[in-house]
Amino acid sequence: MNIEEFVRDGHLTYMPSVAVDCAIFGFHDNALKILLLKWKNLKGWSLPGGYMKRSEEAEEAARRLLNERTGLDKIFLQQYHTFTGIDRTKAQGIELESFGETIGLEVGPDHWLRQRVICIGYYALVEYSKVKNPRADSFTEECCWCNINELPHLLFDHQEMIEMAVRTLRLQLNFQPVGLNLLPLKFTMNELQKLYETLLGYPLDRGNFRKKMLSTGILRKTGERPTGKAHKAPHLYSFNKQEYVKGLKSGMKFS
Amino acid sequence: MNIEEFVRDGHLTYMPSVAVDCAIFGFHDNALKILLLKWKNLKGWSLPGGYMKRSEEAEEAARRLLNERTGLDKIFLQQYHTFTGIDRTKAQGIELESFGETIGLEVGPDHWLRQRVICIGYYALVEYSKVKNPRADSFTEECCWCNINELPHLLFDHQEMIEMAVRTLRLQLNFQPVGLNLLPLKFTMNELQKLYETLLGYPLDRGNFRKKMLSTGILRKTGERPTGKAHKAPHLYSFNKQEYVKGLKSGMKFS
Repeated sequence: MNIEEFVRDGHLTYMPSVAVDCAIFGFHDNALKILLLKWKNLKGWSLPGGYMKRSEEAEEAARRLLNERTGLDKIFLQQYHTFTGIDRTKAQGIELESFGETIGLEVGPDHWLRQRVICIGYYALVEYSKVKNPRADSFTEECCWCNINELPHLLFDHQEMIEMAVRTLRLQLNFQPVGLNLLPLKFTMNELQKLYETLLGYPLDRGNFRKKMLSTGILRKTGERPTGKAHKAPHLYSFNKQEYVKGLKSGMKFS
Repeated sequence: MNIEEFVRDGHLTYMPSVAVDCAIFGFHDNALKILLLKWKNLKGWSLPGGYMKRSEEAEEAARRLLNERTGLDKIFLQQYHTFTGIDRTKAQGIELESFGETIGLEVGPDHWLRQRVICIGYYALVEYSKVKNPRADSFTEECCWCNINELPHLLFDHQEMIEMAVRTLRLQLNFQPVGLNLLPLKFTMNELQKLYETLLGYPLDRGNFRKKMLSTGILRKTGERPTGKAHKAPHLYSFNKQEYVKGLKSGMKFS
């Protein structure tokens, strides 16, 4: 569907009131990054997302849009919040009107693109290095990783969406495992702690962290130590996949 | 708005594709209960909820609907998941058609009430004893507490909604405080543990529970013991409201 078709007949394919957006986090150089798109016809950046199709459930829509906008596939997405601010897309309306003129279509107040839209938010943690060339599409001109502490001007309520995704991610650390896809297959306790500290934004006590992590059962001691290091080199761990997946689904057991 | 007006012109006031539902939990006699409504014209029970108004955000809608349907007010509601199954309200369509006949209005396939509806779910924990007479309204004939382990036949996808609300509530126990409004102002550590065990559905180690609870900072030792008990009676605790509210907003600190 090209832009003209989308503006004219999109409401036949999409639910005019329901959109999804994806906050995709990556971890690199001990910093938390997020994937953002720059739109061609709107002045600012946004999360990858868009309207949900009439034939889709929300998660399907999130996967499709993420793939269309960034080329990313097979990501473990988690729904975290639905945003329903009444004026959340008002700014879009004004820009859409002038955009309509550039393609010779009227996008007046009754146009389907001007209806109130609620947005279902998803988030994910991905391996930064696997996303080699995030690509833009016909609606967007740039797609790139931004440091979470240095965000550009964001469209709509996407600043709030990102803040809530970060808050949710930090809460999640207390009851669900994190790290698979973000760390190498084998890692030291210190590397795992660095990841947690970066996500949380504050330092953790080394002894407590180690004790708590080992008590969850999601770690497996490989019996190896980093090669080329002295005898006192730290142990290497890997994730116990079965316990990890169980923890994602039903939380790590309260103890 | 009476039923006839709602069926004929409701789409002018409400978003036809967006509804909210509330899973309201109460704690009584060491059992977890949930508030359910029996509809007049649909054969089964449901959570209190309904369409979101065009002039409302989702949480406002949830509060209004909960108040209209049950008389409950000023509850701490938490959004937990948005349900977008394509066929989630299909069963409703067939019943609506025959219901339309009873009030002399046609509710055909293009009627606004037959559109696909997504539903934003909220949940809350309330003090069972404060909800004296949950009341039905013009759409419903009964409103009452049901034991979570003995649910009646539920409409739409409300069985799934309740299951996910219970799962979310259980996860929440690991990172947010629970108990205010569910326990008396002063309570023993044993009473708090009973509440947790009921919500989780499994027993907890007494020593670990006590240690973990005290480490969060949300409890305050009152210095009192239950009256009329021997010298060895257990201590009474109350919640430190400031830490409790902080914990609700940003989670209890990872340690």
